[in-house]
Amino acid sequence: MAKPLLQLALDSLDFDQTISLAQQTGPYVDIFEIGTPCIKHNGVKLVRELRRRFPDKLILVDLKTMDAGEYEATPFYEAGGDICTVLGVSGAATIAGVVKAAQAHGGEAQVDLINVPDKRQCARESAKLGAHIIGVHTGLDAQAAGQTPFADLSDIGNLGLPVRISVAGGINKSTVQDVVRAGAGIVVVGAAIYGAPSPAEAAREIRELADAA
Amino acid sequence: MAKPLLQLALDSLDFDQTISLAQQTGPYVDIFEIGTPCIKHNGVKLVRELRRRFPDKLILVDLKTMDAGEYEATPFYEAGGDICTVLGVSGAATIAGVVKAAQAHGGEAQVDLINVPDKRQCARESAKLGAHIIGVHTGLDAQAAGQTPFADLSDIGNLGLPVRISVAGGINKSTVQDVVRAGAGIVVVGAAIYGAPSPAEAAREIRELADAA
Repeated sequence: MAKPLLQLALDSLDFDQTISLAQQTGPYVDIFEIGTPCIKHNGVKLVRELRRRFPDKLILVDLKTMDAGEYEATPFYEAGGDICTVLGVSGAATIAGVVKAAQAHGGEAQVDLINVPDKRQCARESAKLGAHIIGVHTGLDAQAAGQTPFADLSDIGNLGLPVRISVAGGINKSTVQDVVRAGAGIVVVGAAIYGAPSPAEAAREIRELADAA
Repeated sequence: MAKPLLQLALDSLDFDQTISLAQQTGPYVDIFEIGTPCIKHNGVKLVRELRRRFPDKLILVDLKTMDAGEYEATPFYEAGGDICTVLGVSGAATIAGVVKAAQAHGGEAQVDLINVPDKRQCARESAKLGAHIIGVHTGLDAQAAGQTPFADLSDIGNLGLPVRISVAGGINKSTVQDVVRAGAGIVVVGAAIYGAPSPAEAAREIRELADAA
């Protein structure tokens, strides 16, 4: 099995803090995710700056697009984003629009299953529409209510779709190996890295755990 | 009946074009809406710039928030936004978070019913959570498939909730009076103004039609 990719969610709103966190953790991280509040706050120039500073990293822009898929996503691929996200609840036309924008720029489209009622059906349809990655995702507000992404990950993993599966939602040192073993090709970590006393050390530890799973 | 408010959707991605369109149409418009692709592209500085240039206009930031409601919306109210939107499909915790951020800054929260399966139930719950405005909204991708917001507007209007109702989705000169008569307190117009040969003239005409409805 290929080693999982480690994705760091850059959830700060501050431009300079975001760059600094990326610099600290870069050696251990494959994908820098510009979180949804962060991209809304800073705009496309943050994608350009991360692209310029980290030419060898993958950049995911967590647009969570809900409408106007191709129109909204296109400039973020143009600015150097490798992956943009689109909400599963947006529907087929919007997902297809983001896939089209991705294909036009050699990028990838990720469908976020957050709050999708029938996640298996949405994952199957998204794969048919050409989505490259399915994101199993328990949001911050749902995590605060005690929810986790683990059952959904197992459900979606069992479908055997020709996509990579990304999992996000409170993953930390104690859960990272379980999610890799459950089939996650991309493991998203946020607070367990950026909230640690040493983000670099936390990223290194989680990287090692993921690789050893 | 109070006269309806006219909201112009600023859907361009370009910072200067957005400011220019606002300047042209300002005399006829009550609310400047910074569209979702536009805010993701330009970031919070566009809110600050519109606030500085148009101290007497209402500014709506179409965040379409899906998660982390209070965290995501707070800086946009701080920057001078009067209204932020949150997706009805996000759920009660996220809606409550945006309402909390609004209340902390003397602003308003608008729940967007786009793609909500049970719109009446969501509207009722949103009103209970303290949302100020319910947005009946047919997105651009759904408009391209021939859908309109008119049936939903009538449905939500009939609930008699203590909220204002905003309606968006391809409204133009020929439909603006119908939506006002159907109970819309806020009428959102996009392409019928910014796509017109003279946006100022189109805004003036639609304003007059809305006021006369």
